[in-house]
Amino acid sequence: MDDLAHLTTPAFLVDRNIVEQNCARMRRKASESGVAFRPHAKTHKTVEAARLQHGGEVGPITVSTMAEAEFFAGAGFRDITYAVPIAPEKLPRAAALAGRIERLNILVDSFVALHAVETSGSVLDAFLKVDCGYHRAGVDPADPESARLAIAMARSPAIRFHGLLTHAGHSYNARDVEEIRRIAAEETAALTRFRALLAAEGLGDVMRSVGSTPTLSIVDRFADCDEVRPGNYVFFDAFQATIGSCRAEDVAVSVLATVVGSYPERREAILDAGALALSKDTGPSHLDPAFGYGVVCDLDLRPLDARLVALSQEHGKLATAAHLPVGTRVRVVPNHSCLTAAMYDRYHVLAGGRVAGEWRPVRGW
Amino acid sequence: MDDLAHLTTPAFLVDRNIVEQNCARMRRKASESGVAFRPHAKTHKTVEAARLQHGGEVGPITVSTMAEAEFFAGAGFRDITYAVPIAPEKLPRAAALAGRIERLNILVDSFVALHAVETSGSVLDAFLKVDCGYHRAGVDPADPESARLAIAMARSPAIRFHGLLTHAGHSYNARDVEEIRRIAAEETAALTRFRALLAAEGLGDVMRSVGSTPTLSIVDRFADCDEVRPGNYVFFDAFQATIGSCRAEDVAVSVLATVVGSYPERREAILDAGALALSKDTGPSHLDPAFGYGVVCDLDLRPLDARLVALSQEHGKLATAAHLPVGTRVRVVPNHSCLTAAMYDRYHVLAGGRVAGEWRPVRGW
Repeated sequence: MDDLAHLTTPAFLVDRNIVEQNCARMRRKASESGVAFRPHAKTHKTVEAARLQHGGEVGPITVSTMAEAEFFAGAGFRDITYAVPIAPEKLPRAAALAGRIERLNILVDSFVALHAVETSGSVLDAFLKVDCGYHRAGVDPADPESARLAIAMARSPAIRFHGLLTHAGHSYNARDVEEIRRIAAEETAALTRFRALLAAEGLGDVMRSVGSTPTLSIVDRFADCDEVRPGNYVFFDAFQATIGSCRAEDVAVSVLATVVGSYPERREAILDAGALALSKDTGPSHLDPAFGYGVVCDLDLRPLDARLVALSQEHGKLATAAHLPVGTRVRVVPNHSCLTAAMYDRYHVLAGGRVAGEWRPVRGW
Repeated sequence: MDDLAHLTTPAFLVDRNIVEQNCARMRRKASESGVAFRPHAKTHKTVEAARLQHGGEVGPITVSTMAEAEFFAGAGFRDITYAVPIAPEKLPRAAALAGRIERLNILVDSFVALHAVETSGSVLDAFLKVDCGYHRAGVDPADPESARLAIAMARSPAIRFHGLLTHAGHSYNARDVEEIRRIAAEETAALTRFRALLAAEGLGDVMRSVGSTPTLSIVDRFADCDEVRPGNYVFFDAFQATIGSCRAEDVAVSVLATVVGSYPERREAILDAGALALSKDTGPSHLDPAFGYGVVCDLDLRPLDARLVALSQEHGKLATAAHLPVGTRVRVVPNHSCLTAAMYDRYHVLAGGRVAGEWRPVRGW
């Protein structure tokens, strides 16, 4: 690829054909499974990829910051879930945005947050965030207090209550596809049990919204849920390929870098891609403590005999027996595409082996 | 601080008084030691802080990207060292910038790079990058090939040769001040020996440029070097305070965050500051594997009984026995201020306990 010899490095490369394939596959599964599709836009943060998630159109999406919500609203997306429990101070901003689009769903997982909504003077669409084993945010579905909170939300005049939302982020700690499958089954089972409990209390029409790229990628069909919110699948990354969410050839992104130091006497080389070009995510280190900070490949994405053993701000240190003279260009498949993409103001989009355009992500909060 | 109750979170806070103190102390030491002062701007990447490094004026600086070099040149800085070995493809850009300012120093550490300069058609100011034990970039000062390269650079019509440049980055792995002191002594001794070797070969007037915040912070006076290039000292961080480069009260920066989930039953809470607000730098984990992703404090920067045990994209997970209800605001002292600062498009600058302004850093490459 001649273009890759001339771009300034480090550069974030996105293969549009692979993005389109990844998007089409997930969208088709949601459609065939008869569940609502509300993909997450936090991985790519671009209008172009969000539209590809919906086959070239706008559609319901999920976001991770209010800045993303406002950015996508400005680009015509009218139905948005802000999938982090809302800080009380962000309620006026959420209410202002909700007034400009069809629907902004917020997450609540405490009586404190519910009270904050009720005293904000607004009426907001909301889901109850449920913890299905990840133990990050969310209420325990087995705790009677959680049912009390769901019922309080459903009865609150300040809330239009839509259902239960969970994220099986612990699927990222899985060691193989079987473990991902078990986590996925537990996730939907916990939500379904909780929904039954609420139904017994008289609360019907409660949606179950689930989402994590590993759990949604390994199945052919989505079952026991009403909405799916995958995000990372648009790009995938070295982590997802290693735990079995995708094949190596499904990863759509890489960081183009240049060898700026070559030290064969100590079997090392230095790239001009460091922590600010790659992020310091350690990837699937639970499976391989020596995995390094990304998979170092040649320009055709064939892995090289080189491990990215250390990152400082603008240097990536390779342990390598390969001949990599100064000026050599490599592509690093990132460990965690969400974090790596966020380091760039622009992505270089490849199509047919050429740089065919640029995408500009939103940034900040 | 009333302002801190209202800023949108996460937000990057810079205490201007502490920055001024940190800058004045390092500048005074350089002046009293009679060495040239070329501070690094990569930590803050702002015009405001770069001027404070020089007592409110422009002066010689060091940068880590060509984007920084161009940004600071545009702000009136006329004497800049680009302190990463240059990729051959960046030579035309470097030459263009060099033509617009008084001096742009580049780094060379291979005959390949020297040859690239010689065939570029430009004449550039350059240092030889020397490895004094960090084993990242640089030539081995004990290798006869390194002296050959220095002499070739000095004789090259394409290079104005200024001297030897090193960075004792391995001081970051030190366990205490005594170890930092030993590394600093080895660094200057290795450069001085190498300079003597070059003098014996007839190469005189060779500058020794050194720089790392730990080695330059713990001494009262700089010796056995001709130029110093500290950078992190402007902000410092939890890492530097832990290894002994500074006191906790010398750290000028923190991330303002809000508790968005509170789970006392599992002794956990969630902040709205995750990997994109803090970076995934693990800090002084060589001294304390359970250090976490930053030091969690109240609004007056008193440490709380809370450890930041995990970061996902927009969530920070606290293990805590403290009462931290939803809506509580905290300040997180970052592990590595260079990487954390780079996540923000703007810094909120505090003076006298109020938000007194904004600084906008340069970004990208």
